[in-house]
Amino acid sequence: MKEDEILKNIFKFYKPNPRIVLGPGDDCAIVSEMVNKNLLITTDAFVENIHFKYDLLSFYEIGYKSAVAVLSDICAMGGSPIAILVSLNINQKSINKIDEIYKGISDVCDKFCISIVGGNIEKYDRLELHLTAIGEVKKEKALLRSNSRVGDLIAITGDLGRSRGYFIAYERNLISGVKWWINEMREKFTRPIVRFEEMNKILSNININACIDISDGLGIDGYRMAQLSEVQIVIYANKLPIKDSVKFLSKKLEIKDWFIAVESGEEYELLLSIPREEEEKINKLNLPITIIGEVIEDKPGIYIIDGDLKIDISKRGYDAFAI
Amino acid sequence: MKEDEILKNIFKFYKPNPRIVLGPGDDCAIVSEMVNKNLLITTDAFVENIHFKYDLLSFYEIGYKSAVAVLSDICAMGGSPIAILVSLNINQKSINKIDEIYKGISDVCDKFCISIVGGNIEKYDRLELHLTAIGEVKKEKALLRSNSRVGDLIAITGDLGRSRGYFIAYERNLISGVKWWINEMREKFTRPIVRFEEMNKILSNININACIDISDGLGIDGYRMAQLSEVQIVIYANKLPIKDSVKFLSKKLEIKDWFIAVESGEEYELLLSIPREEEEKINKLNLPITIIGEVIEDKPGIYIIDGDLKIDISKRGYDAFAI
Repeated sequence: MKEDEILKNIFKFYKPNPRIVLGPGDDCAIVSEMVNKNLLITTDAFVENIHFKYDLLSFYEIGYKSAVAVLSDICAMGGSPIAILVSLNINQKSINKIDEIYKGISDVCDKFCISIVGGNIEKYDRLELHLTAIGEVKKEKALLRSNSRVGDLIAITGDLGRSRGYFIAYERNLISGVKWWINEMREKFTRPIVRFEEMNKILSNININACIDISDGLGIDGYRMAQLSEVQIVIYANKLPIKDSVKFLSKKLEIKDWFIAVESGEEYELLLSIPREEEEKINKLNLPITIIGEVIEDKPGIYIIDGDLKIDISKRGYDAFAI
Repeated sequence: MKEDEILKNIFKFYKPNPRIVLGPGDDCAIVSEMVNKNLLITTDAFVENIHFKYDLLSFYEIGYKSAVAVLSDICAMGGSPIAILVSLNINQKSINKIDEIYKGISDVCDKFCISIVGGNIEKYDRLELHLTAIGEVKKEKALLRSNSRVGDLIAITGDLGRSRGYFIAYERNLISGVKWWINEMREKFTRPIVRFEEMNKILSNININACIDISDGLGIDGYRMAQLSEVQIVIYANKLPIKDSVKFLSKKLEIKDWFIAVESGEEYELLLSIPREEEEKINKLNLPITIIGEVIEDKPGIYIIDGDLKIDISKRGYDAFAI
């Protein structure tokens, strides 16, 4: 097998798109001009035994989740996606699974009518996906992490905790057999959603001050927003949108459900900082958005209020370099 | 050490640039609108023990070469670079060398007044750099690999063979001590040049039909151009620009110098397919460009003429998946 043959085989996943002047196969891909818009660009890595395990995800799902992860960053900026590039390290175990991995990536791309426009492939003993996404955003309309304002409401799309919950269940040998609560958690763990649809509706109806997507956990990601904005974010434990499956698991483990919710990464929900005067409009949007907290003037950080307790959650979540 | 602290430290290598609306630190970087230009995007991997060895390159040089590699793809399309993103896997050996690696990347970026606008960092037992570059090119002016035409002249910038020559010398334990020929080869091996300056001059003076940069070797890369253009490329061995150091080494090893030249990857020279009527203009450009062959109507492929021999060189070079 030759590198060019492998790449040629991958090219079948490229689908023409009016935005793409030239797809994969040359030195670069060419994307058409962006008029009155700025370019968004981001890169993300998805690595064996760090971000995924073979006994938890199929090769298709590994591709699927990695595409979700990188596109979610475009979404969190208030942008529209254009294309993806894939730099793949494959190992012996995955060399015959390239098609499945690409099918997963490709299915996510199809949802949003975008193309895989390029990539690269290397051999190694570990499967790794390094994905780059480009997108576009109207000038001066990008949603930054650093623009959260004192007095804002804090809202989240969808629900939190299922992704971490599924992993905890796996660690405790609970995932075998057919169980409604395991299935509910697995759904989010294997097929998270990029919230482009919700973001589009939000952007055309309400003002947003700041946004970040939850990839490492509400604690760590919320702290990033708080720190960059120099504000304090306060979350109310009883307002967190937590599905029954996570509640069920937390009861079983005799821990509070919000413990799981705030440290759950790979959720790809949007954490939004919204001017308070937009509150009524949010409720009218008929979208899966929940107001979970507010922004106050205090030492930068993120805290959760649980009854009388106010607890620092800035370190709750996934940190690849934590010691 | 926390991921955010490591990233913050890396951000010091970000330099503001009028083209960059928002640098690293948010979900995405933001690049200003491209008026009347298309976007170029490419990604490349630079991996321990595949693309580099610690006893051959310093950490600075590892960063330097990887930046050259990815920017060279922008150059080969006739484009101008805008920014780089770096997805880094670091291991124990390199965790304290992040600054040196970034300094290498940054020094290349500085040459072309572009910025490192984002990235990602993971831990593993192998150092890997996955770089993405973006650039821009005038509409309909991109130089494709697929546009070489029968009758064209084939030209190359700079010289070929020093990169491979240095590696061969290393494998044969010849690189220790001060030797003029080792130094001459090491210069290219450690600090290859991205030919933006030459490309700019070429583009404003002569018509080019097709271009590819030599990253895997004249054989493999030339074959890519020939195959995509459905032409045959013929190279004349006696016309190849080969420095004295490579000639010296090949004499020592009793092999023909062009053996080394055609299989030498990581040269980042530009292989150009130029309409024959431009010949006089090429010579007047006063640039390091040599006409080394021509394009004929025959079975797609790349051959070298050495005296009476015509030899297929389509597989000569570096193929990560060759078996």
